[in-house]
Amino acid sequence: MNLEKKQLTKKSKDISRWYLDLMELADLADYAPVKGTIVFRPYSYAVWERIQKIFDAMIKEDGVENAYFPLFIPYSLLKKEKQHIQGFSPELAIVTIGGGEELSEKLVVRPTSETIMYSMFAKWLKSYQDLPLKINQWCSVVRWEKRTYPFLRTMEFLWQEGHTAHLEKNEAESMALKALSWYEKLYKEYLALHPLAGMKSHTEKFAGAEKTYAIETVIESGKALQAATSHNLGQNFSKAFNIRVLDKKNNLQYVWQTSWGISTRSLGAVFLGHGDDYGLILPPKIAPIQIIILPIEKKDKLLKKTQEIKEKLSNKTHRVRIDTNFNKGLGWRRNHWEIKGVPLRIEIGEKEIKEKTLTAVNRLTLKKQKIEESTIYDAVDQILDQIQEDLYERSRRKTEKLIVRITDKQEFSQALAEKKLAQAWWCENPDCEKKIKEETKATTRVIELEQIEKKSTKSCFFCRKKAERIWIIGRAY
Amino acid sequence: MNLEKKQLTKKSKDISRWYLDLMELADLADYAPVKGTIVFRPYSYAVWERIQKIFDAMIKEDGVENAYFPLFIPYSLLKKEKQHIQGFSPELAIVTIGGGEELSEKLVVRPTSETIMYSMFAKWLKSYQDLPLKINQWCSVVRWEKRTYPFLRTMEFLWQEGHTAHLEKNEAESMALKALSWYEKLYKEYLALHPLAGMKSHTEKFAGAEKTYAIETVIESGKALQAATSHNLGQNFSKAFNIRVLDKKNNLQYVWQTSWGISTRSLGAVFLGHGDDYGLILPPKIAPIQIIILPIEKKDKLLKKTQEIKEKLSNKTHRVRIDTNFNKGLGWRRNHWEIKGVPLRIEIGEKEIKEKTLTAVNRLTLKKQKIEESTIYDAVDQILDQIQEDLYERSRRKTEKLIVRITDKQEFSQALAEKKLAQAWWCENPDCEKKIKEETKATTRVIELEQIEKKSTKSCFFCRKKAERIWIIGRAY
Repeated sequence: MNLEKKQLTKKSKDISRWYLDLMELADLADYAPVKGTIVFRPYSYAVWERIQKIFDAMIKEDGVENAYFPLFIPYSLLKKEKQHIQGFSPELAIVTIGGGEELSEKLVVRPTSETIMYSMFAKWLKSYQDLPLKINQWCSVVRWEKRTYPFLRTMEFLWQEGHTAHLEKNEAESMALKALSWYEKLYKEYLALHPLAGMKSHTEKFAGAEKTYAIETVIESGKALQAATSHNLGQNFSKAFNIRVLDKKNNLQYVWQTSWGISTRSLGAVFLGHGDDYGLILPPKIAPIQIIILPIEKKDKLLKKTQEIKEKLSNKTHRVRIDTNFNKGLGWRRNHWEIKGVPLRIEIGEKEIKEKTLTAVNRLTLKKQKIEESTIYDAVDQILDQIQEDLYERSRRKTEKLIVRITDKQEFSQALAEKKLAQAWWCENPDCEKKIKEETKATTRVIELEQIEKKSTKSCFFCRKKAERIWIIGRAY
Repeated sequence: MNLEKKQLTKKSKDISRWYLDLMELADLADYAPVKGTIVFRPYSYAVWERIQKIFDAMIKEDGVENAYFPLFIPYSLLKKEKQHIQGFSPELAIVTIGGGEELSEKLVVRPTSETIMYSMFAKWLKSYQDLPLKINQWCSVVRWEKRTYPFLRTMEFLWQEGHTAHLEKNEAESMALKALSWYEKLYKEYLALHPLAGMKSHTEKFAGAEKTYAIETVIESGKALQAATSHNLGQNFSKAFNIRVLDKKNNLQYVWQTSWGISTRSLGAVFLGHGDDYGLILPPKIAPIQIIILPIEKKDKLLKKTQEIKEKLSNKTHRVRIDTNFNKGLGWRRNHWEIKGVPLRIEIGEKEIKEKTLTAVNRLTLKKQKIEESTIYDAVDQILDQIQEDLYERSRRKTEKLIVRITDKQEFSQALAEKKLAQAWWCENPDCEKKIKEETKATTRVIELEQIEKKSTKSCFFCRKKAERIWIIGRAY
C-alpha cells in the first residue's frame, strides 16, 4: 500500500532487522493500537488460509469434526485443573465489565480451550459408544504479552486446537502421536521446513499435560522455533472435570484425552526459514501467488499475451497474477515480487512474443530460463515442483549444520556463541534445566522421537550426573 | 451424543419450543457456562462452513481480500465516531485486567471492527491508487446479551465483516448494493429462503451509517428475521478517523466507505425457516450430509452394497454417510436422520439387492420412490435439485402469505394478531416509529429495493400524517 518503500536490510547481515523490515515491505503485518497485537494483512493471511485448507482436510479425513466454543471462560472453570491455571495465570486477559455492569464472576478471554470444552464433554459423554470424540476448533486465543515479535510472539494469535477423548490410555497416546505426524507432514511436504519431531521435557510441557510432543524448526539465527505441539493429557482433565463414561462392563471410567495445535507462528517459521537477502521465498504449495506475470511494457500486444498465459495457467489451478503497475519501472516491479517471495516470475516482452517463448525467473535460484510457449504447462509444473523440493532440501541441510554434538559445558557455550543448537546427553532433572536456562538463556527443546526409547548410561553435559538420553538444547524464539 | 432422546414438540403446535428441542435433538447447539453464550456443535458448524465456502468464493471473485484484525479495541478508539459508540455502548464486554495488572486503558472486545480497521486504513491509504480497498474478516464478535435464543440471539456469534473504502461517493453506494445482492443470491440460491432485500429506517440503521440495507426473511411465527446487513457509511468514519487520500489532482479527499456482514443468525433462519413437525430440513446445497444410506439389517451383503453405493456417490462429490448404528432399531434410525434434516435417505435391504433398486426417501415430501441402481447418479441429482428448488418455492409462497397489505391501525393490529407482517404506507418519522414500537412491539423492517424510488402522497397507516413510501412492518426476532 505504501508506494515509496524503505530499503530491505540483508538477512545475512541482521536477520532480526530483515524480518521486521519484511513485515512492511512484503505487506505481511502491521502493529495494531493495542500493544502486543498485530494485524494479519491479506498477503500473510492468505498463506494461513492455505495452511488451514491443507490441515483441515487432513484431520477431516481422520474423522475429526470442527465446532466452535465460546471465547469467554468463567474464571472458576479455568481453575479446576491445578497445573493448568498455574501455567496460564500470568498470561490472562480478564473481562470484568459486561453490558455496563461489574460482573459477579470474572471472565477469562480463552488462552486455550481445554476447560471450556471439557466442561461440555462432561455433559455430552455418557457411554463408550460416544468415544472416541474428536473435535477441532479454528479460532484466535489471547495470552498477555507486551514484547511483540510479529507472528512469533503476539498477544493474540490464530490457531487450531484439536481435542479428543478416548476410552483407553493407549488410544490417547496414539492420537497424540498421530497429530504430531500430521504436523510433521505439513511442515515437510507443504511448508518445506525440516521438522524436528520429539517430546518436551517435564519443565517445558503444556500446563496440565502428561506428555507434550512438539515440532521444532531451526533458524539460521541459531534459535529453535516451537512450531506445533501435541499433548497427551492422560486423565488430568477428565478427573478435574469429571468426564466419565460407562464402559462395556457398565463401569464408569474416566476418559483419556489429548489436545494439539498449530498457530500463526507457523507463518513466522516460513518467512524466517526460507527468505534470503532479497526478501521472502514462499514454498509453491502455500504461496498465495505462485506465478507473477510481468508484461515488460504497456503495449496491447503484450497485455493480450499475458492475459492469455494467465488464463491458461489458471485453468490448471495455478495461482497466477499479472502485474500491470506501469507507474513503476520494470526494476521496481521485479524487486517488488522478489520481496514478496513469489516462487516463479514470468516476463513477456517483444522478444518473447517473436520467439514464442517466455522468460521464467526462479525466485530460489534467481536464475533465468527460456520456456517454449508450447510446453508451458509442463515447464511451469516442473519449476514449481523443483522449488518446493529444493526449499525442503535446503532447510534439511541447514538444520543439520545448525545442530552440533557436544559433550560438556564449554562446547555448549561455544555452540551457542556460534549461533548453533546442541545435541547432548542430558540428565532430565528440572533443577539442572533451570540452571542451564539461568546461565545460558538456552532451554531443552526436544528429545527426538527416535531417541526416546534409546537409553544408555552417560553423564550429563551440564551437571555431569547420570544421563540416559540425547536431547536438543539451545536458544529459542 | 445423548442416546435416549426426548420427544420433538411439533412445529405446527409451538414453533419456539420445537426450535429449542431441535438444539439438542439434532445436535445443533448447547448452552455454554457463560450466560448468553452457546457451543456451535459440529453439525450446525458444518452448515456454517458451507456458507463460508460459498460466500468466500463470491467475494474473492470480486477482489475482496481476507485479513485478520485484533479482537481488542482501545476504548478511546471506539469513541471516535459519535453515533457508533452511542449505539454500541450498552452492549460492550470490557477487559480491565491483563497479565495480572489493572490496565491503564480499558479494552473493548470487538462488537464489530469498523474502528480498529479504520485506524489502520488511515495509516495505509495515501493515494487514490490505493483505492478501492476491499477487506473482509471471518471472526467472532461479542455484544452483551443475557437473553439467549440459540443462533438468533447470543452474546458471541460468528460472522464475516467486509469493509471497503472508495474515492467516489457513488462507488460506496454501488458497493453497499453489490454486497446486498451477494446476500440475496446466497439466501435465494443456496439457503433456499426467500429474501426481502431493502433499506432500513433511520432508527433501525447501523450506528454510524448513512444508510443500512438489509435482507429480512419471514418465519411462520409471524416474525421477520434480519438476515444480513450492508451499510453505506458515507464519510462518517473517514472524517472521524482522518482517512484521506490524494486524488488525481493531488488534493486530499476523505474516502467513502461501506461495511457489510452475515452471521450465524443465518443458521437460525435456515433451521426455523425450513423445518417441519419431524425436524430439520436442510437445503441440499448447504447440508453437511446430503444423503444418508441405511442398510436395513446387519448383513455382509447389505453392508457391501451400501459401501459400494457410497463410494459411487462420493466420487460425484455428493456428501454421503452410511448409518450402521445397529444398536438402534430401523425406526429409530429413520427418525434420527429425519430430525437432522438430511435431504435424501437411501434404504437398502434384501429386496432392493434382488431387484437391483434402491429405495429413496425425500425428506421434504417424505415420499418413497424406487430408483434403478443403474440410473443412480441422475436420479439422485434430480431429487436433490428438486428439493432445493421446492424448498425455495415453498419459502417464497410462505413469505407472500405472511405479509398483508394494511391501511390503518386496526388492520395492523389484526395482522399482528394473525401472526403476520404488514405492508403499509408509512411516514418515516422516528417519533411515529417509536410509538409503533411502544404500542405494538413491532418495528419497521425494511422498505424493499423496488419501492425506494416510487414516491406517492398518501397518509401514514399509524399517525395519518403524510406518507410517501410503502414499508414492511412487523415483529422480529
